[in-house]
Amino acid sequence: MGGDHGPHVTVPAVVNYLNRNPEASIVLVGLPDVIESELQALKFAPTHRLKVHAASEVVGMDESPALALRGKKNSSMRVALDLVKSGEAQACVSAGNTGALIATSRFVLKTLPGIDRPALAVVLPTIRGHTYVLDLGANVDCSAEHLLQFGVMGATLVSTVENKDRPSVGLLNIGEEEIKGNEVVKRAAELLRESGLNFYGNIEGNDIYKGTTDVVVCDGFVGNVALKTSEGVAQMLSTYLREEFKRNLLTKFAGLVALPVIKAFKRRVDHRRYNGASLLGLRGIVIKSHGSADSHAFRFAIMRAVDEVRGGMLGHMSARVAQLPHHLNPSSQLPPIGEENPL
Amino acid sequence: MGGDHGPHVTVPAVVNYLNRNPEASIVLVGLPDVIESELQALKFAPTHRLKVHAASEVVGMDESPALALRGKKNSSMRVALDLVKSGEAQACVSAGNTGALIATSRFVLKTLPGIDRPALAVVLPTIRGHTYVLDLGANVDCSAEHLLQFGVMGATLVSTVENKDRPSVGLLNIGEEEIKGNEVVKRAAELLRESGLNFYGNIEGNDIYKGTTDVVVCDGFVGNVALKTSEGVAQMLSTYLREEFKRNLLTKFAGLVALPVIKAFKRRVDHRRYNGASLLGLRGIVIKSHGSADSHAFRFAIMRAVDEVRGGMLGHMSARVAQLPHHLNPSSQLPPIGEENPL
Repeated sequence: MGGDHGPHVTVPAVVNYLNRNPEASIVLVGLPDVIESELQALKFAPTHRLKVHAASEVVGMDESPALALRGKKNSSMRVALDLVKSGEAQACVSAGNTGALIATSRFVLKTLPGIDRPALAVVLPTIRGHTYVLDLGANVDCSAEHLLQFGVMGATLVSTVENKDRPSVGLLNIGEEEIKGNEVVKRAAELLRESGLNFYGNIEGNDIYKGTTDVVVCDGFVGNVALKTSEGVAQMLSTYLREEFKRNLLTKFAGLVALPVIKAFKRRVDHRRYNGASLLGLRGIVIKSHGSADSHAFRFAIMRAVDEVRGGMLGHMSARVAQLPHHLNPSSQLPPIGEENPL
Repeated sequence: MGGDHGPHVTVPAVVNYLNRNPEASIVLVGLPDVIESELQALKFAPTHRLKVHAASEVVGMDESPALALRGKKNSSMRVALDLVKSGEAQACVSAGNTGALIATSRFVLKTLPGIDRPALAVVLPTIRGHTYVLDLGANVDCSAEHLLQFGVMGATLVSTVENKDRPSVGLLNIGEEEIKGNEVVKRAAELLRESGLNFYGNIEGNDIYKGTTDVVVCDGFVGNVALKTSEGVAQMLSTYLREEFKRNLLTKFAGLVALPVIKAFKRRVDHRRYNGASLLGLRGIVIKSHGSADSHAFRFAIMRAVDEVRGGMLGHMSARVAQLPHHLNPSSQLPPIGEENPL
């Protein structure tokens, strides 16, 4: 129900996905009337592969996460996460209010033992391929221990969905030298170095798009600024390019000749292919689609959820975070190192 | 002497600048032999407008700032800053080691009363024009009070060199709402709101390149990541575009036709025009050129220094920071608000 466009985008994406993937089945959670009228418009009726599950409320995009969590116990978001918890669904995909999705996921599904806070990981294109960056805004005041947890979670995600044995992990910093950075990042580098991960060391902002490492670890504030700044640069450059091609008759002609190239370029940088951020560290798979996603983009978020389910991400993640040294988890209620691990 | 290319870049830039600006005069500080051989290669002899001032040492690009400050009392950087302190020069421009330049500037020139730490401000292009962002890496663990000081310094810089009466100031955050962000940023927003500046409020990463505000305030860690990430995106997009135009004979032909447009586009985004970061908050004007700057780019750093001198930046800055509430300056030794201001 969520996102800027609601079922008008999510329902066509689901139908499109089911048409392409005959083995998949999806449960649409929300106001039945609205969902069914979207399905009718597409001439698609609910089947065993496409069920509609009623939820009587919708979390607004600007609603306070705390109020949504407390006040809307029958929201589409909450009901969808309940289905994941009960095992009726294997993953939840939402384009809704990010803060509410994080808070509700955490409340309903709980974090894995050893994980203090869930983190949002996105895939970004690089010169060589793509890279996974986390956290993207779920956590704005991170400790070094949180950054270590992000490293472990990011590496587990990549090894699961990309079949990479030992993905490289970089720590986003303002210089490659070990002495650089703020105190939290310096300490995080020490922890990552001792973690057994394939830790590359410090990387800088430009390394994200160079594809220097498979995983980029940063606190949510820095990650969110880096992502939005990237969007801003790309928008500015594309505006400039468009303006230059529209300058006069001659440049318009050049634009016409170059059109297939520009189109190929645009396909390559189409951010919709990267839609779907993984909310990691929970006892369930949750994918956050961009609120402004269209149905093409939303389908990519569904595909990401399926990839994580198929790869057995949850099992890998539980096993991997269970190996985290407990004394490093600031909120951990677990016994100290050496004692029995409850997982 | 500093930068990746040393006098081979800086000397031609200076000669070029002097040829274009007959009223200017410049002092070249460094190893006289090296400088003079560069001048000879350009068939340019020292005059009253171009003096050579000897310094016997050079700070290495990877040298520790603390060691450079303590150990190299006759470095080109130190001697140039001494000339600014003594009034023989009105500004110092350096492409050298950033950390050493900041540490040495702070030691030699001292910060203005009311300013705790100098900040690095850069100009970045936007869809509408350009914007000033600070801090860019001089300060990695900032308090809310530091962010307030950055806002005041950035606004003073813009009003001086751009002749803008009340430049708008945005606070880089991860959402526009007041409740968003980490604790330091939330507190900084309160301080900026009470500061008398034309405070726009929170902005996000993409607002930098939208040109939403004249000044963007952020801590040095975030600013540095945002800047380097921007460089990374731009490099990746230009690599993609080049690859698409080189794909086959047809696309190569399209590239040939579109060449004038691509060239106009490249001129427009040429980062060399934005070279030269202002080190603000000192009792002297210091400009940091990018270490990899070529002579075209270095000339822009010189122009920036001249603009600040001509605009009377130092006077404006002293007057403006003197109005900062003293209790907000964590390291301030000044009397509390209401008492005589020693400036």
